[in-house]
Amino acid sequence: MIHLNRISTEPPKRWEKKETKEKLSELHKELFELQNKFFADGRHALLIVLQGMDTSGKDGTIRHALACMNPMGIETKSFRMPTKEEGDHDFLWRIYPHLPAKGMISVFNRSHYEDVLVPTVAKSIPEAGLRHRLELINALERHWVSSGIGVLKFYLHIDQGEQKERLAERKQDPQKRWKYDAADDVAAKHWDHYRKAYEQVLSGCNDVPWNIIPANKRWCRNYSVAKVVRDHLDSLELKYPRKRASAKRKRAQ
Amino acid sequence: MIHLNRISTEPPKRWEKKETKEKLSELHKELFELQNKFFADGRHALLIVLQGMDTSGKDGTIRHALACMNPMGIETKSFRMPTKEEGDHDFLWRIYPHLPAKGMISVFNRSHYEDVLVPTVAKSIPEAGLRHRLELINALERHWVSSGIGVLKFYLHIDQGEQKERLAERKQDPQKRWKYDAADDVAAKHWDHYRKAYEQVLSGCNDVPWNIIPANKRWCRNYSVAKVVRDHLDSLELKYPRKRASAKRKRAQ
Repeated sequence: MIHLNRISTEPPKRWEKKETKEKLSELHKELFELQNKFFADGRHALLIVLQGMDTSGKDGTIRHALACMNPMGIETKSFRMPTKEEGDHDFLWRIYPHLPAKGMISVFNRSHYEDVLVPTVAKSIPEAGLRHRLELINALERHWVSSGIGVLKFYLHIDQGEQKERLAERKQDPQKRWKYDAADDVAAKHWDHYRKAYEQVLSGCNDVPWNIIPANKRWCRNYSVAKVVRDHLDSLELKYPRKRASAKRKRAQ
Repeated sequence: MIHLNRISTEPPKRWEKKETKEKLSELHKELFELQNKFFADGRHALLIVLQGMDTSGKDGTIRHALACMNPMGIETKSFRMPTKEEGDHDFLWRIYPHLPAKGMISVFNRSHYEDVLVPTVAKSIPEAGLRHRLELINALERHWVSSGIGVLKFYLHIDQGEQKERLAERKQDPQKRWKYDAADDVAAKHWDHYRKAYEQVLSGCNDVPWNIIPANKRWCRNYSVAKVVRDHLDSLELKYPRKRASAKRKRAQ
């Protein structure tokens, strides 16, 4: 069982801000090239799942860790409160259309995990139902991996003090105020409930393992996420194929 | 009437490669900030349409002019040969779902124009039908603009000699060979037919005006496209709103 309070939210010892930021710039160049090869190679897909408490930096991670990517090869999907139509389906219905095609990277800003976390805190689904969802997610994520989709799951780990500071900043900074939602304050009051819900999800849905990223420092978070993505792409032994991969790239004619 | 043979495919006089590339780096930084404001502002949408002969650099433009963007705010859609399902609908059916929402940028890699260009060359639709499509596109693009979608249309202008060189390069370069399609050679033989079809489209669908970009030099093309996008975003007098723009940004809860 994972205990988030025992896992550091701060950068590893000896990591320096300036040096890490320089290393991130280098990673961006590598990612730009690797992504091109990944797209050309066309044998794999990649799903990046970003989860974390409010203000943990999901948007910021996309903006600062992944904005080096060619938009042709990456799609981002934010999962918000289910719409009426989404709510009329099972919880995975809205997820499926956004899975990445071969050669593509999909980033889920929140994900299917919201439909375990929120009902856990709200106690709107009985425990057996929640367990069933966890089992289903495990089975499905394994299936995705065996179908050629790399699944990189990130929990952006901040502590409660950091959240309080960021919420205050969000309300005051004219460039961030537009992100503030009164619901953030409500959720903040349930910090411990959400932490426990996350602990269940991180422990119970680890068949495809989670990356728990110390995220109190944005520079540490950005570099850490980018590095996991780089290492994953690098491990695939990507090649520029000799021939056009498939008909899907065929141009209109 | 536009005559493409009378329009230069080369950079304007006095433009230097090194200096222009440096200016593009500066533009990228500006675009990164402007796009964030555009997303936050949430009052406008932006559609970027890329058209041009094979090898004119549509993919390269996305990769090198627009890869500075936050993937959360930009979506790319490549329109290839219509699928069976797409062909069973009118030619605009597959376009509509990919129009940008407020705050978002959509890039069309090829577009609804393919469904005028290809049938013009193939003579598969009678002239009256083609004229009807042009009128419809004019009406629709005007409607999009009046609905708050900026529409930036780019024709990437290369000459036939440049295309021949690029096709040869595509076949030889191990990093580019995967893009080669035998259909490219077939289309290349119809250069003059495609040029004339483009002249009709550029002249007949100019209610929302085309940007004809000299594209023989990639550095000139990348800078020119990025500059048009920057100038457009800059003209919108974007603001960070005081409050969350709308329910669409609401997070799952």
